[in-house]
Amino acid sequence: SKFEYVRKFESDDRCLPNCWMVVRLDGKGFHKLSSEHDYDKPNDSRALALMTKSAVRVMEEFNEICLAYGQSDEYSFVFKKDSELYNRRKTKIETNICSLFSSSFVYYWSNFFPQTYLKYPPSFDGRVVLYPTNQNLRDYLSWRQADCHINNLYNTAFWALVQQGGYSPSKAEERLRGTVASDKNEILFSEFGINYNNLPELYRKGTILLRRKVEQEHEKNVVGQNGMVETQRYTKRRMTILPLNVDIIGDKFWEENNDILGSYM
Amino acid sequence: SKFEYVRKFESDDRCLPNCWMVVRLDGKGFHKLSSEHDYDKPNDSRALALMTKSAVRVMEEFNEICLAYGQSDEYSFVFKKDSELYNRRKTKIETNICSLFSSSFVYYWSNFFPQTYLKYPPSFDGRVVLYPTNQNLRDYLSWRQADCHINNLYNTAFWALVQQGGYSPSKAEERLRGTVASDKNEILFSEFGINYNNLPELYRKGTILLRRKVEQEHEKNVVGQNGMVETQRYTKRRMTILPLNVDIIGDKFWEENNDILGSYM
Amino acid sequence: SKFEYVRKFESDDRCLPNCWMVVRLDGKGFHKLSSEHDYDKPNDSRALALMTKSAVRVMEEFNEICLAYGQSDEYSFVFKKDSELYNRRKTKIETNICSLFSSSFVYYWSNFFPQTYLKYPPSFDGRVVLYPTNQNLRDYLSWRQADCHINNLYNTAFWALVQQGGYSPSKAEERLRGTVASDKNEILFSEFGINYNNLPELYRKGTILLRRKVEQEHEKNVVGQNGMVETQRYTKRRMTILPLNVDIIGDKFWEENNDILGSYM
Amino acid sequence: SKFEYVRKFESDDRCLPNCWMVVRLDGKGFHKLSSEHDYDKPNDSRALALMTKSAVRVMEEFNEICLAYGQSDEYSFVFKKDSELYNRRKTKIETNICSLFSSSFVYYWSNFFPQTYLKYPPSFDGRVVLYPTNQNLRDYLSWRQADCHINNLYNTAFWALVQQGGYSPSKAEERLRGTVASDKNEILFSEFGINYNNLPELYRKGTILLRRKVEQEHEKNVVGQNGMVETQRYTKRRMTILPLNVDIIGDKFWEENNDILGSYM
Ligand SMILES: Nc1nc2c(ncn2[C@H]2C[C@H](O)[C@@H](COP(=O)(O)OP(=O)(O)OP(=O)(O)O)O2)c(=O)[nH]1
Ligand SMILES: Nc1nc2c(ncn2[C@H]2C[C@H](O)[C@@H](COP(=O)(O)OP(=O)(O)OP(=O)(O)O)O2)c(=O)[nH]1
Ligand SMILES: Nc1nc2c(ncn2[C@H]2C[C@H](O)[C@@H](COP(=O)(O)OP(=O)(O)OP(=O)(O)O)O2)c(=O)[nH]1
Ligand SMILES: Nc1nc2c(ncn2[C@H]2C[C@H](O)[C@@H](COP(=O)(O)OP(=O)(O)OP(=O)(O)O)O2)c(=O)[nH]1
Ligand SMILES: O=P(O)(O)OP(=O)(O)OP(=O)(O)O
Ligand SMILES: O=P(O)(O)OP(=O)(O)OP(=O)(O)O
Ligand SMILES: O=P(O)(O)OP(=O)(O)OP(=O)(O)O
Ligand SMILES: O=P(O)(O)OP(=O)(O)OP(=O)(O)O
Ligand SMILES: [Mg+2]
Ligand SMILES: [Mg+2]
Ligand SMILES: [Mg+2]
Ligand SMILES: [Mg+2]
Ligand SMILES: [Mg+2]
Ligand SMILES: [Mg+2]
Ligand SMILES: [Mg+2]
Ligand SMILES: [Mg+2]
Ligand SMILES: [Mg+2]
Ligand SMILES: [Mg+2]
Ligand SMILES: [Mg+2]
Ligand SMILES: [Mg+2]
Repeated sequence: SKFEYVRKFESDDRCLPNCWMVVRLDGKGFHKLSSEHDYDKPNDSRALALMTKSAVRVMEEFNEICLAYGQSDEYSFVFKKDSELYNRRKTKIETNICSLFSSSFVYYWSNFFPQTYLKYPPSFDGRVVLYPTNQNLRDYLSWRQADCHINNLYNTAFWALVQQGGYSPSKAEERLRGTVASDKNEILFSEFGINYNNLPELYRKGTILLRRKVEQEHEKNVVGQNGMVETQRYTKRRMTILPLNVDIIGDKFWEENNDILGSYM
Repeated sequence: SKFEYVRKFESDDRCLPNCWMVVRLDGKGFHKLSSEHDYDKPNDSRALALMTKSAVRVMEEFNEICLAYGQSDEYSFVFKKDSELYNRRKTKIETNICSLFSSSFVYYWSNFFPQTYLKYPPSFDGRVVLYPTNQNLRDYLSWRQADCHINNLYNTAFWALVQQGGYSPSKAEERLRGTVASDKNEILFSEFGINYNNLPELYRKGTILLRRKVEQEHEKNVVGQNGMVETQRYTKRRMTILPLNVDIIGDKFWEENNDILGSYM
Repeated sequence: SKFEYVRKFESDDRCLPNCWMVVRLDGKGFHKLSSEHDYDKPNDSRALALMTKSAVRVMEEFNEICLAYGQSDEYSFVFKKDSELYNRRKTKIETNICSLFSSSFVYYWSNFFPQTYLKYPPSFDGRVVLYPTNQNLRDYLSWRQADCHINNLYNTAFWALVQQGGYSPSKAEERLRGTVASDKNEILFSEFGINYNNLPELYRKGTILLRRKVEQEHEKNVVGQNGMVETQRYTKRRMTILPLNVDIIGDKFWEENNDILGSYM
Repeated sequence: SKFEYVRKFESDDRCLPNCWMVVRLDGKGFHKLSSEHDYDKPNDSRALALMTKSAVRVMEEFNEICLAYGQSDEYSFVFKKDSELYNRRKTKIETNICSLFSSSFVYYWSNFFPQTYLKYPPSFDGRVVLYPTNQNLRDYLSWRQADCHINNLYNTAFWALVQQGGYSPSKAEERLRGTVASDKNEILFSEFGINYNNLPELYRKGTILLRRKVEQEHEKNVVGQNGMVETQRYTKRRMTILPLNVDIIGDKFWEENNDILGSYM
């Protein structure tokens, strides 16, 4: 029709080739959402599991994602460097990933919060960031995991002071102002008997999602030589999405999973 | 931390000022989704109502959207020209709108499809397109409404041939190949007694959402002069989001709603 | 060859359709260049004429430029709104205009500075800016002309104080600090007998270049009825590039040249 | 002033960090320019030297350029990977480099073409292309050098046929159509006694510009022990821009100049 010229106003936004494309999503106003839905403090394992379930759904759909990393209300998805998804169109990638994650979050909500009515549809922003080198990509992921650690240590100390120490929120904040990591560890240990390093790695490290072949046990019934039906066990290797709660700042993880970055190390 | 330098790899993507920003969302693979969930053919009013409900939710959240237009598996949102939402950051706008629409679609699904289990989380792509002038914006919306008309006329004829005429899908397609609008109208009328222009405007025109003041009737109980409790009626004007199924290609709509484009005519 | 894949790293950068494209060039380090080549202060008519000659050369080459405006070490070129030059590729337009202007500046230097050796090749930066509406475009040009006026008034007062008033540069600067336009006019008038408004419009308004049909007188020799050779005069209308030094902030210019903005007013 | 809002219409266009930025310039319409100024065919050493002189001028001005490569009417400038020139603003970089090269070309013209009047100001387009890895950068430069070789072999054969073989241009073109490199080498050798590999490397390889410390001989007069004035010779190391006409496709060049790519090999 004579109106079709308006398509020319769309812009081309392909990502530079040969760069890592990372999509980061972050919950909008999750301060409010977490408190309105009574998230446990400082960490709600149901909420974290729901985030990870949604991320797994995204990885099942987009198989060019080779790694994902999540913590708090955010998830980052790393596409393999030579991905040609949507011709690397930036907006297409951002909106598709963000949309599927968001709808999955609602879709699976009741699996993780069976008792809690979801009061309104939540939402997430999304963005693609490009990283030219393996080092840049590792630094990006380190940045997010360091952020997880910093926030979690703070929040753990804060809520210990409030929930166990009887501090008001503002008093707790005051107490923690200006403290460094070791101070917070000390408060936790000496005042509340909490050894921070013994807390679940899920909280301290966040969640890494990888594609991995896993052995799966199967059984089948066969008629044996003696004519009797026997149950035979065997294993099959299947591609699955594996969650890990480990350090990704140091070299160990990357050495053990050296397929991700390819020739890097 | 020493990793924070990675933030510098994010790019600034502000939209040109003084342009209409239009966000268009489109369902991913809704051909499959509609058939897996037994959408009525050619139009499923529940599906259209769910789309519109989700769009209303978006407009309630983002009050700088002045108009939305939806049909089939798509919705377009028009921001007022001088909107400063997220400093006009393109990606922020695209992903937030797309995310909220997507989560709303799942959130409200069961209200519109109480009998139909949603098999998997659906998703939508999104994009911002900029239009410098009122004429460009009108042409954009005309393009979408003309698209609605063309597809709907085709689909109506197609499914009449299949469902009422006993055609196989491929025979129906063959029959319609190369026909123009008047041919399809004629087939519908002479072979199936359907006057296309009498079909619901919802199907032929799609849905326009506008913000409008509406009168609302209220009642309150007061103690009257005679000491008796009386019920008084009064009306209040409230801003609401109004759905219309009308032509937006011609001038009439724009003259009647001349606040939208401002000084344009 | 197997190396050609590197072309894919080039990005597409088309300008939004239906916007005014303005290319502004600005001399790099012309503070130094003007002093090393003994430009007259505050205004050097040779330098301004050379700038305008270079701009005319650009307009002769690119006939989709409908207007140019220059002052000091800068020139702005306005392309007609529907220009499809280089498919509106931003970088192509910027670099071509900037390159031709720069080489012209050197090429024509000796025509305007016959006595002054050009010590080194000068350079200019360039940029495209998009303006959606006629009002935005007018405001852009008004911004540049207001800038011309402000700088010229300041410089005129400054150099009067230094050259005629015996002030040192720093004393002159001090004297002018915090003064408004009327103060500077007053200083010029009462202390140096200069009526600012009588200074050449070239300095106060800058230069507008327009394409205009002009009448040109021609002569030809013909053999008359009496068999004698006669010289006949006639006029021909020819398209030329016309320099003006007038106000472009008010409406008058735009009314008199109403072809530029088209339907605007 | 109230017009300043128009600055907001300028867009931010920073190049992705940690990528090689390459600026390629290419002469506009140099087919015509070369023939109008009687360039020698197929290669004019004066023209190539003028191109290189202009490129040297650019490298003197922008010291973050670590390598340049030129052939025919084009030059490519490679910025060191971590260059922060103009905050990596794409347009600023493109236009400044392109402008200085263009003005230098005119400025130095008469040094290289003392007998030839430059008929009009020439111009060049420019563009930035980003390359994430050393391999991509090397492939880019290999692409340009392979292009040099292919064109030069063709042109050498073509002009041999025309100038020495008495072919008309169209006959020469016909003769070469569909031939591969070895065919052209064979024609040159058997019909014209030209061994292509003995032609100047300048023509076959193009020109690489590098920054290198060179030893420079100096003399000074000193009063010796015997009271006599003696001339003493000594050497000093100075940074200069060194032209090379060597292969940059193979590894040798990069091994010998391993500072350019840093840790790469
Ligand atoms: N209680 C609790 N809160 C959580 C948990 N995970 C995330 N949150 C909350 C804590 C923070 O207030 C918020 C995440 O911080 P953000 O910086 O993303 O802020 P927020 O989403 O409120 O604002 P934004 O829209 O992202 O700018 O989510 C959890 O497991 N338990
Ligand atoms: N039966 C039925 N189908 C509908 C209705 N509304 C939309 N659809 C289907 C018909 C089309 O196959 C599809 C919309 O067309 P699209 O061009 O957006 O295709 P689709 O979403 O499959 O692919 P895409 O991922 O957008 O490229 O959705 C409806 O009310 N009833
Ligand atoms: N004496 C004299 N100087 C002039 C004339 N036209 C321009 N200039 C000088 C005055 C200013 O110092 C300079 C233009 O100001 P800019 O803001 O463009 O500064 P400049 O080019 O030095 O730096 P830039 O590289 O543009 O950031 O050129 C003139 O006619 N006479
Ligand atoms: N005779 C001669 N011609 C040369 C020499 N160097 C370059 N040229 C000419 C040959 C080509 O026609 C032209 C370069 O090819 P291009 O593909 O850049 O074409 P041209 O500049 O004409 O068009 P363009 O504006 O870049 O699209 O310059 C030379 O040394 N001698
Ligand atoms: O949380 P981030 O990393 O997105 O950082 P921000 O400060 O929230 O900024 P933005 O406006 O980009 O979401
Ligand atoms: O449906 P549209 O308008 O998005 O057009 P398309 O042909 O689907 O193209 P794309 O979604 O890839 O931009
Ligand atoms: O002279 P302008 O308008 O370009 O403004 P600026 O302050 O010089 O900034 P830049 O040249 O860096 O865009
Ligand atoms: O010579 P190039 O590499 O620039 O390639 P082109 O075919 O001339 O294309 P353009 O100059 O239009 O990018
Ligand atoms: Mg944020
Ligand atoms: Mg958040
Ligand atoms: Mg967050
Ligand atoms: Mg589409
Ligand atoms: Mg669709
Ligand atoms: Mg659709
Ligand atoms: Mg500037
Ligand atoms: Mg300047
Ligand atoms: Mg200036
Ligand atoms: Mg080219
Ligand atoms: Mg060329
Ligand atoms: Mg060329």
